[in-house]
Amino acid sequence: MKGSVGEAGEFGLIRELTSRLTTTPAVRLGPGDDAAVVSAPDRRVVASTDLLVEGRHFRRDWSTAYDVGRKAAAQNLADIAAMGAVPTALLLGLVVPSELPVAWPSELMDGLRDECQVAGAAVVGGDVVRGDTITVAITALGDLRGLEPVTRSGARAGDVVAVTGWLGWSAAGYAVLSRGFRSPRAFVEAHRRPEPPYHAGPAAAGLGATAMVDVSDGLVADLGHIARASDVRIDIRSRAIDVPSQMNDIGQAVGVDPLRWVLTGGEDHAIVATFPRGTKLPARWKTIGEVHAPSSLPSVTVDGAPWTDQSGWDHFSDIEG
Amino acid sequence: MKGSVGEAGEFGLIRELTSRLTTTPAVRLGPGDDAAVVSAPDRRVVASTDLLVEGRHFRRDWSTAYDVGRKAAAQNLADIAAMGAVPTALLLGLVVPSELPVAWPSELMDGLRDECQVAGAAVVGGDVVRGDTITVAITALGDLRGLEPVTRSGARAGDVVAVTGWLGWSAAGYAVLSRGFRSPRAFVEAHRRPEPPYHAGPAAAGLGATAMVDVSDGLVADLGHIARASDVRIDIRSRAIDVPSQMNDIGQAVGVDPLRWVLTGGEDHAIVATFPRGTKLPARWKTIGEVHAPSSLPSVTVDGAPWTDQSGWDHFSDIEG
Repeated sequence: MKGSVGEAGEFGLIRELTSRLTTTPAVRLGPGDDAAVVSAPDRRVVASTDLLVEGRHFRRDWSTAYDVGRKAAAQNLADIAAMGAVPTALLLGLVVPSELPVAWPSELMDGLRDECQVAGAAVVGGDVVRGDTITVAITALGDLRGLEPVTRSGARAGDVVAVTGWLGWSAAGYAVLSRGFRSPRAFVEAHRRPEPPYHAGPAAAGLGATAMVDVSDGLVADLGHIARASDVRIDIRSRAIDVPSQMNDIGQAVGVDPLRWVLTGGEDHAIVATFPRGTKLPARWKTIGEVHAPSSLPSVTVDGAPWTDQSGWDHFSDIEG
Repeated sequence: MKGSVGEAGEFGLIRELTSRLTTTPAVRLGPGDDAAVVSAPDRRVVASTDLLVEGRHFRRDWSTAYDVGRKAAAQNLADIAAMGAVPTALLLGLVVPSELPVAWPSELMDGLRDECQVAGAAVVGGDVVRGDTITVAITALGDLRGLEPVTRSGARAGDVVAVTGWLGWSAAGYAVLSRGFRSPRAFVEAHRRPEPPYHAGPAAAGLGATAMVDVSDGLVADLGHIARASDVRIDIRSRAIDVPSQMNDIGQAVGVDPLRWVLTGGEDHAIVATFPRGTKLPARWKTIGEVHAPSSLPSVTVDGAPWTDQSGWDHFSDIEG
């Protein structure tokens, strides 16, 4: 469909967007009615909402609409997985300027659809309105399949801390992009399109994870959420964390300790969890620390000492990229 | 809490907003984790998303933050009810400028909470980010309690059309406000704060409603959705529609036929449904028309003829108020 969203009109745009969607058996009623109907076999539904605003969470000159869609879906579906649930559905609220080409929301929808397919979910509904700033509001739903949700508050002294997925790749890619470079490609791609380990969330719940989050604000910051909610201290062993050699090279090139990206970079949506000591973890989980009783130290320490770098970021204090 | 949202910071603002919430037994896990967990006893969940953008869907000089909250919740919860489901939960995505006083989102949250309470639901989670334009993204969830969802596509020739709730009140209130007046108060209030008949949706489903929508775009436009989805023609009998005398007075004062407000005014979130002829409807439902086989006439007619006025509105063509 050519032309602008203003030319397409509300119903024309909605037709174009919904025509791009695929479905799953969990979708009992898809887009086009007052509401969608989605299977919730567990008799509980897990739900999470996130917003992305142009200029703050994405830039059209850095990311294609397709990549923004992949990323927007990924960050929400990762929240579902980090509760131990299997993602089932996604709803989209979209603010678009009327002069925006229809191709942009169409490719955004393709990205949402494809990321949903990776996670086993489907886009089931949404709303599109006109406004000055592109804003993408996503709600993801999921099913617990009989497992208890893994919250932030269950970590106990003696538990081990383990992580799966990518850490610091998006932040390193952001550092590259913000200096005007487009490579190394793997890191730029990681910034544009995270790859959360969706399957690992429900698997961790099945293995008895005591607390779990997806890493969206940075490893130290997100473990801080667990530490405070569980009233424990979490210590990370920096030597247990692998820094890829290419990330070291970027760090040297831009004058940044790459450990900073690994410890404070968000947006890769790795999954970090605490497990009872002795839990046999699958190969792609890496044990990176331990849970301790609270002390006078900060709630998260690195090698037993406070981490002095900026930990994570405040959505209100700076652009995220 | 005093000061601006920028001064409060993301986590300070979230603490302030969540402190205002109440809960229900359906809320298994409320705000503060990666996602919320809500009961879905029916094993299916009904979900709908809507967006409100400042300047397009509300004006801060016409509506308080509290009223915007009531209205934002109402329009979403009505979508759930119009499927025949009981609303259970609501999630909020909120874009706020950093200079906005914290009081604004706080009062918005109070409005969301109170409207949820009217409908039996609760706010269970959300996301807050900074941006230039206040944007409110709402997702509502609901439970079907064993009934089949009532879609737009089940109307059959011979069915009757019935409506419950308010029609044209919000549009009349908008006409008053847009001319600089603040009364009659009942209509201004109706524009600021709709009162959808939530209970009527599940009740209609239980009575065997064949198709149902909430009136958000206007009666003719929304019945048009049913007519097209069901491949029928719907005829409204204008004499069956009560126009309150005060609405007639406003119409005379501003030179508008009040039937236009009743037939094309959205935002009251009345519920309109089709039922098999002979269905015994509760007292507050009013039969206003019949379903016919499709013909060369438009999909919705008034007294057997095309309705010539503008029917409903396109979100992309004009401000809604």
